[in-house]
Amino acid sequence: MTQKIIGIDLGGTTIKFGILTISGEVQDKWAIETNIIGNGKNIVPDIIRAINHRLDLYKLDKSDFIGIGMGSPGSVDIDKNTVKGAYNLGWEELQEVGREIEVGVGLPFAIDNDANVAALGERWVGAGENNPDVIFMTLGTGVGGGIIAAGNLIHGVAGAGGEIGHVTVDPDGFDCTCGKKGCLETVASATGVVRVARQLAEEYEGESDIKAAIDNGETVTSKDIFIAAEAGDKFADSVVETVGKYLGLAAGNLGNTLNPDSIVIGGGVSAAGEFLRARVEKYFKVFTFPQVRESTKVKIAELGNDAGIIGAASLALKFAKDNEVA
Amino acid sequence: MTQKIIGIDLGGTTIKFGILTISGEVQDKWAIETNIIGNGKNIVPDIIRAINHRLDLYKLDKSDFIGIGMGSPGSVDIDKNTVKGAYNLGWEELQEVGREIEVGVGLPFAIDNDANVAALGERWVGAGENNPDVIFMTLGTGVGGGIIAAGNLIHGVAGAGGEIGHVTVDPDGFDCTCGKKGCLETVASATGVVRVARQLAEEYEGESDIKAAIDNGETVTSKDIFIAAEAGDKFADSVVETVGKYLGLAAGNLGNTLNPDSIVIGGGVSAAGEFLRARVEKYFKVFTFPQVRESTKVKIAELGNDAGIIGAASLALKFAKDNEVA
Repeated sequence: MTQKIIGIDLGGTTIKFGILTISGEVQDKWAIETNIIGNGKNIVPDIIRAINHRLDLYKLDKSDFIGIGMGSPGSVDIDKNTVKGAYNLGWEELQEVGREIEVGVGLPFAIDNDANVAALGERWVGAGENNPDVIFMTLGTGVGGGIIAAGNLIHGVAGAGGEIGHVTVDPDGFDCTCGKKGCLETVASATGVVRVARQLAEEYEGESDIKAAIDNGETVTSKDIFIAAEAGDKFADSVVETVGKYLGLAAGNLGNTLNPDSIVIGGGVSAAGEFLRARVEKYFKVFTFPQVRESTKVKIAELGNDAGIIGAASLALKFAKDNEVA
Repeated sequence: MTQKIIGIDLGGTTIKFGILTISGEVQDKWAIETNIIGNGKNIVPDIIRAINHRLDLYKLDKSDFIGIGMGSPGSVDIDKNTVKGAYNLGWEELQEVGREIEVGVGLPFAIDNDANVAALGERWVGAGENNPDVIFMTLGTGVGGGIIAAGNLIHGVAGAGGEIGHVTVDPDGFDCTCGKKGCLETVASATGVVRVARQLAEEYEGESDIKAAIDNGETVTSKDIFIAAEAGDKFADSVVETVGKYLGLAAGNLGNTLNPDSIVIGGGVSAAGEFLRARVEKYFKVFTFPQVRESTKVKIAELGNDAGIIGAASLALKFAKDNEVA
């Protein structure tokens, strides 16, 4: 009998599913559309139906499965397996996600927030190489993260552990949506990179297509900026340098504090790959003391969109192991 | 039969011992001088003799003891129970501390570095109130710390976890002994506070006994500065304000990252008590996002010099529990 796990990555546009082995290999994956009509009341029934249908289709026996893990947006209660305040799903009120799925599928269920789950995925079979100390930073629409320290995901007292996007990197910096100033998110999210570019454009005097586009009021994305910088646009390069400095400061202080094996950068902005990584590492080395500089690595995420289903599966595996010991 | 634990706090001038209950109550404590003659070759034999003598004196049976825990300066290998590079003890070379004490006393032994052990003590029965997520910052000759997250002491990949003194609080700040700039230690250790005072004295134009003393080349301590500030010296108050801002930034980012139940400030500088705490908290609130601001507390350490023996005892208790499960 081969033991398997189901991982679910619940997002605002699609719900991704994976069937994995206990060593983290994805054997099968599929996705369905997220139906947010009626305050997302169909989401959980859709998930249950999708899993049961897949198991029937491939004639898979439920007794071969250890359990189901899921990553969700919003505010997740990992003890009660509930979610609330996931506005992109229409879930304003508390949702009894775990109870319904456990009954509907008949397997044990574990849940955590999406950034934490992606961190677990990268740590398990991605860039984190299954080390007990790994920090994951995700640079996308916002900046999020997850921290695994001494083998455990860190939630903190109110579940805000790992909210790396709100680390202060410039006490006099841009206003953040959270109400304070100079959060990493204001300068290193996709919109943050563009915000830095707008600020630097005011003072830059050389030739640059990116600066010209900004001055002309054209739409410029963080991707445009990274591509131009890599192609030699000096203005765009100064933007990457500034963003890299802020990321290096934040990553450096995470390193000085927790000395993880690696700090893994994922999310859309990380598509810039080695070009971004090298820039962050340059400043990481400036802002870390020798022991950390020599032992903590800066890496780019490896799993892409699969991080969610893989990390979700690891959640179910850990839940099963914890219950074995107890 | 009452189960007891022995805690040892090894320092450069004294070695403190405690006999504790498994709930962390100190039933007996004593201290001996640290004999660093001959590269500290007598230290371990002195420890063994001190414990065996005390157990004989009070007719305590070894079978009543769970084990021995110890906090040590230097570079501690917690798996091998060895210490090296503890220069204030004369221990430049590797010392087989654990093996010798286990044989000499006949009880299981666990060890960690002194800042981590003090953190465990404050977390267990001090200001940390036995919460699973507590950060301890110690402000003394240097700035050190210990991080307990999800119930575990965080060592990181190279044992540098919790080295809060080298968090960068000002990228353009003072040079640190570690080789980088603007470490928390350069502005918040006992000498750091005085360094900040010297810098601010250059520009301060009002009346101040502290400024006058600095300008006259007299010896001014961090304690003098805190006392003067509390008594109304405006210059001294501006020093406390600046130090509080740096500490609040560092503590804020620790909060934003790990969302502990509390950040506990100990060490000599923390003798300034509520006056210092309130100033750090003021800036902690400026530099944290709402969820953390409302859930993570800033506290002053409660155990004073006993933190070391109490934390050391907790190390032995954890070691015993881990071995029970295994």
